[in-house]
Amino acid sequence: MNETRRVGQVKEVTSLANPIVKDIKALAQKKFRDQQNAFMAEGLKLVIDALDAGWSIRTLVFAKNARDNPAVQKAAARTVAAGALVLEASEKVLSAITRRDNPQMVVGVFEQRFTPLERIRPAGNDVWVALDRVRDPGNLGTVIRTADAVGARGVILVGETTDPFSMEAVRATMGSVFSMPLARVDAEAFIAWRKSAGGLLVGTHLKGSVDYRSIDYAAAGPVIVLMGNEQQGLPDDLAAACDQLVRIPQAGRADSLNLAVATGVMLYEVRRGAFPMENE
Amino acid sequence: MNETRRVGQVKEVTSLANPIVKDIKALAQKKFRDQQNAFMAEGLKLVIDALDAGWSIRTLVFAKNARDNPAVQKAAARTVAAGALVLEASEKVLSAITRRDNPQMVVGVFEQRFTPLERIRPAGNDVWVALDRVRDPGNLGTVIRTADAVGARGVILVGETTDPFSMEAVRATMGSVFSMPLARVDAEAFIAWRKSAGGLLVGTHLKGSVDYRSIDYAAAGPVIVLMGNEQQGLPDDLAAACDQLVRIPQAGRADSLNLAVATGVMLYEVRRGAFPMENE
Repeated sequence: MNETRRVGQVKEVTSLANPIVKDIKALAQKKFRDQQNAFMAEGLKLVIDALDAGWSIRTLVFAKNARDNPAVQKAAARTVAAGALVLEASEKVLSAITRRDNPQMVVGVFEQRFTPLERIRPAGNDVWVALDRVRDPGNLGTVIRTADAVGARGVILVGETTDPFSMEAVRATMGSVFSMPLARVDAEAFIAWRKSAGGLLVGTHLKGSVDYRSIDYAAAGPVIVLMGNEQQGLPDDLAAACDQLVRIPQAGRADSLNLAVATGVMLYEVRRGAFPMENE
Repeated sequence: MNETRRVGQVKEVTSLANPIVKDIKALAQKKFRDQQNAFMAEGLKLVIDALDAGWSIRTLVFAKNARDNPAVQKAAARTVAAGALVLEASEKVLSAITRRDNPQMVVGVFEQRFTPLERIRPAGNDVWVALDRVRDPGNLGTVIRTADAVGARGVILVGETTDPFSMEAVRATMGSVFSMPLARVDAEAFIAWRKSAGGLLVGTHLKGSVDYRSIDYAAAGPVIVLMGNEQQGLPDDLAAACDQLVRIPQAGRADSLNLAVATGVMLYEVRRGAFPMENE
């Protein structure tokens, strides 16, 4: 741990036994992500996006053979300027850290960041996405990515959810983890917040009484779209807190949509008026 | 291999060295799935769905502790009646076969099935989904699931794609692999088929000249939705073969939608008229 304090210099590491490498490798586990309040982002583009968006970098690791890449050098210089550590690593080390056979040439370790729910005040035509106990990291990451694509304001994680800062979730966000504010809260606090924060809370529910297309979202002011857990859908308390329960029609078996797909279909409907049709 | 011919009887297996177990375990690899023309489906519900849909079962494996489950017994009887093999396995064996710590209590090995493209003749308001070189098994499985949910007729795999019969893809279909016809074809043959088969071929493309919502799909007759590869989008030859190139508007960075989400958004738009709004 002592070595991580030797900031502002490029340190070469080739050994998996190196304590800094061990600390980074441990970030694959939630326990250590929580302990370190950190997470890993893979790829030069993502690291640059994160730095541009003002995320606090702890460590930048790059592959030895990326040493002469000017963009890598620039990212390293920014890391040094931020008082953080830069490591030049062997491919073996990068493979071990990222648990991939063909690792990215750059990995950044960043501080986790959550937005306190009480600071979220939906206004205007803001759209927020709330996810009830989302379980699958790929789904969570994809929802964050989709929320970003439609111009939503952020994602609220309700109840016990999978960790948005796991490697799989971060990968699935394709970088949107750095642009979408994330909040996390238990169901009770979410319901309390929602009462004071206002906006239209729309939950998707198999027993939803209206078609998801029948609401005039553009006229509704801020909208919070609440999606139920993959297996069980929305529990009664959250369903009861909704202003509207809507259903997405399905041709075959009920509840046959993947959560991320259902969220995408919902969000494109809610934002339908926000994307004017400008055909050439 | 000899033992696999001892059809119509329940055989107990506890050893990972058992040759039948080895054959099933090998189905995790594409090479062996191709050699055996088979694949694995996990879970009692899926196996029953597959039997109901007329898929050819090769082997049914159930956990020892599921022996007294009437639904398992019934599935086993149907397997025996089909002249196929039934195995009662230890949890260790099921874990090894499915590569999961908490395996399903039933696993079925089925024959692969592809629909020859020349037999596909889109008619009426049929919707087909075509995927160009889809790479990610989770995306492919989710697209198959979504196609099923909107009542599409099937999924056409164009060019080198990930295997729809991999465990990950099959899992992501949530059973829709058994209800959605699948075809696979190279780009040239797809373009030739599309010329003779008719229907409106709509490709999603970043440079699409029209908004995806601007087409009257309900009036278009059969529609084939063609989605480009995750990294590169549609190549020129496939894009040129399309009657329409459409784009899904995005708020932030271009091309920021996950393939399965984009397909879901497209399909719900194409089928918009097929789901009448019947609000209670």
